[in-house]
Amino acid sequence: VEVTARVTTLRLRETFRISYLVQDTADVVHVAVAHAQATGYGEAAPFERYGESAESARAFVEEVAPSLPDDPFAFAEVEAILAERPGELAAKAAIDAALHDLQGKLLGQPTWRLLGLRRAGPPSCYTIGMGDPDEMARKTQRVPGDFRRLKLKLGGKDGLDVERVRAVRGAVSCPLQVDANEGWTVDEALDVLPELQSLGVEYCEQPLPAGDPGGAQLRARSPLPIYVDEDCHLLSSVATCAEVANGINIKLAKSGGIREAIRMANAARALGLGVMLGCMVESGLGISAAAQIGSLCDFLDLDGNLLIADDPWPGVELVDGVQLPPDRPGLGVG
Amino acid sequence: VEVTARVTTLRLRETFRISYLVQDTADVVHVAVAHAQATGYGEAAPFERYGESAESARAFVEEVAPSLPDDPFAFAEVEAILAERPGELAAKAAIDAALHDLQGKLLGQPTWRLLGLRRAGPPSCYTIGMGDPDEMARKTQRVPGDFRRLKLKLGGKDGLDVERVRAVRGAVSCPLQVDANEGWTVDEALDVLPELQSLGVEYCEQPLPAGDPGGAQLRARSPLPIYVDEDCHLLSSVATCAEVANGINIKLAKSGGIREAIRMANAARALGLGVMLGCMVESGLGISAAAQIGSLCDFLDLDGNLLIADDPWPGVELVDGVQLPPDRPGLGVG
Repeated sequence: VEVTARVTTLRLRETFRISYLVQDTADVVHVAVAHAQATGYGEAAPFERYGESAESARAFVEEVAPSLPDDPFAFAEVEAILAERPGELAAKAAIDAALHDLQGKLLGQPTWRLLGLRRAGPPSCYTIGMGDPDEMARKTQRVPGDFRRLKLKLGGKDGLDVERVRAVRGAVSCPLQVDANEGWTVDEALDVLPELQSLGVEYCEQPLPAGDPGGAQLRARSPLPIYVDEDCHLLSSVATCAEVANGINIKLAKSGGIREAIRMANAARALGLGVMLGCMVESGLGISAAAQIGSLCDFLDLDGNLLIADDPWPGVELVDGVQLPPDRPGLGVG
Repeated sequence: VEVTARVTTLRLRETFRISYLVQDTADVVHVAVAHAQATGYGEAAPFERYGESAESARAFVEEVAPSLPDDPFAFAEVEAILAERPGELAAKAAIDAALHDLQGKLLGQPTWRLLGLRRAGPPSCYTIGMGDPDEMARKTQRVPGDFRRLKLKLGGKDGLDVERVRAVRGAVSCPLQVDANEGWTVDEALDVLPELQSLGVEYCEQPLPAGDPGGAQLRARSPLPIYVDEDCHLLSSVATCAEVANGINIKLAKSGGIREAIRMANAARALGLGVMLGCMVESGLGISAAAQIGSLCDFLDLDGNLLIADDPWPGVELVDGVQLPPDRPGLGVG
């Protein structure tokens, strides 16, 4: 196989803010894997929080490319080679996605179909970044497409989180979920969560800092289900997540790709955990990779391609609030 | 798809005895799924212990056949349909195997390759049925093929289990593992296991009756790793197995097929459990289905096709003690 990687800047429709980050653009890496007149594509959306950048992802792909087997179906072998090198999960996810795209194109089948899955899934939420309560309520009027549920970014240190939810609840009647992005202490969470429950919020993501020793206590006392994101990385972290949460937020950029994400979903089921699949700010290329396994999940947060101004990889279809993977070979976008 | 099922009797090379069963023949069901000029085959080896028979498996396949979708790639949909009906896991495994065989034939790819796995695996053991110590030692001289490790069936109520292992150890130098098939109490296991360890046995399967409340205590005190078989069924049983064992013995005839078996292996990894893949007395058709996922496992017990007198489904290759799946489309046998 022949592998190339280049950095691309995605421009956001509007400034995006969460508890630890503000952004107007997102740099991603597009990986192309060519073999026998077909080319598969994958996207890496690196996690700054874990020391990854578009540049480090691009460098990783170029460094590992000569070690990859020439057989584009040799996923297990590729995974073993990538596992020898630590970190750079977004880059690994891009290679995994490009190989799935390539495999699907070579066999003339959509990836979801080769995985034995359905072209279906639960409705995706659309994310409202953190802001003043009024600002967040106004943003709900500018949600693109026909998203049927909203995710609100909370975790402000200003004591306004409940007001944020109240303002949004006053503006829309759809299902709500929240994400504190590690912004609370156990005591703060126990103050806020009952109020959020009374406002109809369905569940809360990552209330506490990753690894916070109060996780099990919070889960036991929380009136809302807790999903962990920053606490959840690879298959090896799922059993620990089961001690502090009711569900996990899997992201391909954290798991290193579709195959590990499926393994994590399987393990979550064995442990009675709910399964959410999230995304980064990424184009339709990255979102399509995630949407391929959407039918395995209880909750989807796959809005990345609609957060950006001009998606260079169209193909994912938002139908009745569900982000459907394309019905074309491989990842089917572009 | 067009589905047919027929009962076939497999004749054993020699009488096979375990703690709760003696057999000279095994009735299995062969399932054929036809679609677009291709036909996929799968085998059901029903577990009497769970109230299944070849006749009940055949009847199940015929009853469910009209409900199956016409799309031979729609594994998730098939699984959902089969899950609505309780039991008959061997019949479900046969349908799953036939669909994998069909998919592989339609795409021109071996099943292991479509699963992204390797044509490889750990060495398989060959099983020596329970008998007098001398008889078991003699049987080691008649092991077919080039198996490099032996599994000894124990669990006799005659107090001779240690003598059985000692006799075999005196006859061969290869790695040994044992399977008590629920034959011991906690106290008996704690008497026997240290002696087995000193004879070089590597691990013990199912020392206690399934569901025995002493499981966690035995694991804590056992000098040998404990693998559970009769305690381990579907993905939903894996977390419980983690409380009483160091590993699980997955069988397609218990899991209902390849897809659930992979999910179970994934969950086992998340829980730090070892993974063993076993079989029933079955032909190369059933063994090939299991061998497709052998590379996911730590230990294989895939000798069924070599326990029978005349395998009607050749194709699995025993190479250096490893049961390799065929390098032909689908399950690749016959």
